[in-house]
Amino acid sequence: MSSEDLDSQVEFIIEVDKLKQIFRQTCLIKDRRFENDAEHSWHLSLMAILLYRHANEDIDMLRVLKMLLIHDIVEIDAGDTFVYDEVAYRDKDVREEKAADRIFSILPSEQAVEFRRLWDEFEERKTKEAQYAAALDRLQPLLLNFHTNGLAWKRHGVTRDEVVSRNAHISDSSPTLWKYATKLIDEAVKKKYLKS
Amino acid sequence: MSSEDLDSQVEFIIEVDKLKQIFRQTCLIKDRRFENDAEHSWHLSLMAILLYRHANEDIDMLRVLKMLLIHDIVEIDAGDTFVYDEVAYRDKDVREEKAADRIFSILPSEQAVEFRRLWDEFEERKTKEAQYAAALDRLQPLLLNFHTNGLAWKRHGVTRDEVVSRNAHISDSSPTLWKYATKLIDEAVKKKYLKS
Repeated sequence: MSSEDLDSQVEFIIEVDKLKQIFRQTCLIKDRRFENDAEHSWHLSLMAILLYRHANEDIDMLRVLKMLLIHDIVEIDAGDTFVYDEVAYRDKDVREEKAADRIFSILPSEQAVEFRRLWDEFEERKTKEAQYAAALDRLQPLLLNFHTNGLAWKRHGVTRDEVVSRNAHISDSSPTLWKYATKLIDEAVKKKYLKS
Repeated sequence: MSSEDLDSQVEFIIEVDKLKQIFRQTCLIKDRRFENDAEHSWHLSLMAILLYRHANEDIDMLRVLKMLLIHDIVEIDAGDTFVYDEVAYRDKDVREEKAADRIFSILPSEQAVEFRRLWDEFEERKTKEAQYAAALDRLQPLLLNFHTNGLAWKRHGVTRDEVVSRNAHISDSSPTLWKYATKLIDEAVKKKYLKS
């Protein structure tokens, strides 16, 4: 690694500080403010090292963590797209590809390629590592929504069917975690956090 | 893993959501609000996968990431102790040990032991993984302080000598990163971000 490489890496580290200002629709359990992408990425990464035994295959944990640490960085330019917002979802891919082009290219070329591949892998959700990472990316907001009495769900009038359809891929990686999630969803309908 | 284990793991995931409300003395580069421990932990973890080639030994990256993801969790109970606050530092260890006892014991016993060992390893700073993790834990606030024109340093009247003495252990893991840090420190004195 040259000193030029270190300069590019530090530039990237400074750039991604902005992820702490990209807010999601989910709220924190205790003080009910919106969660940001950096906090969310940390929470998912911690969940990954905790819950891996519930995945239905052995996974390369280091690759999962790398994916989770960078998966939302594109939102610095593209913004957070609420998972139940169908209109915003239409051009999500285009916005995020453009962001990935700009942000990962700050890095030394070898790492730019590595990070871009990891992000593509996460988005494509084909490998068992990407499927496990994606399962956590759905389970975490579900937990936060449930434990804030459905704050974000109620605000957007989200229905049970929408939650099931958007989250069912949790079972691709872990039937156990999906079973847990469906119990929460049923309970959320009973408590009127979610429309039935 | 039993369903009881999953219940304990989810309880822990909910508990550590509080880390997003533990604020540090460093500020974000763009909007200058205080950074919280969850954001900080994410930023360090990302730095770990970026900067490892500057470490002077090969390291077990997965163990580094595990340490970084959990290293500040004790601050949910013990609070953040500013690295230049000598008075608060006196009982820091006692406060944090007590917090570790409570928080890690929420986990299934095997993981409680694993997480406690990782946290102890990070605190003792003897292994090359802990030294690399600790180097990043010092370099990151240094970058944030420098790029906010010394906001936290000025607020607390921090001197060059204090910064050098608190951060010099960066060189245990990486002389390259420490060289980079000393250049920033010298520049910070010139720009009067730091007292000489």
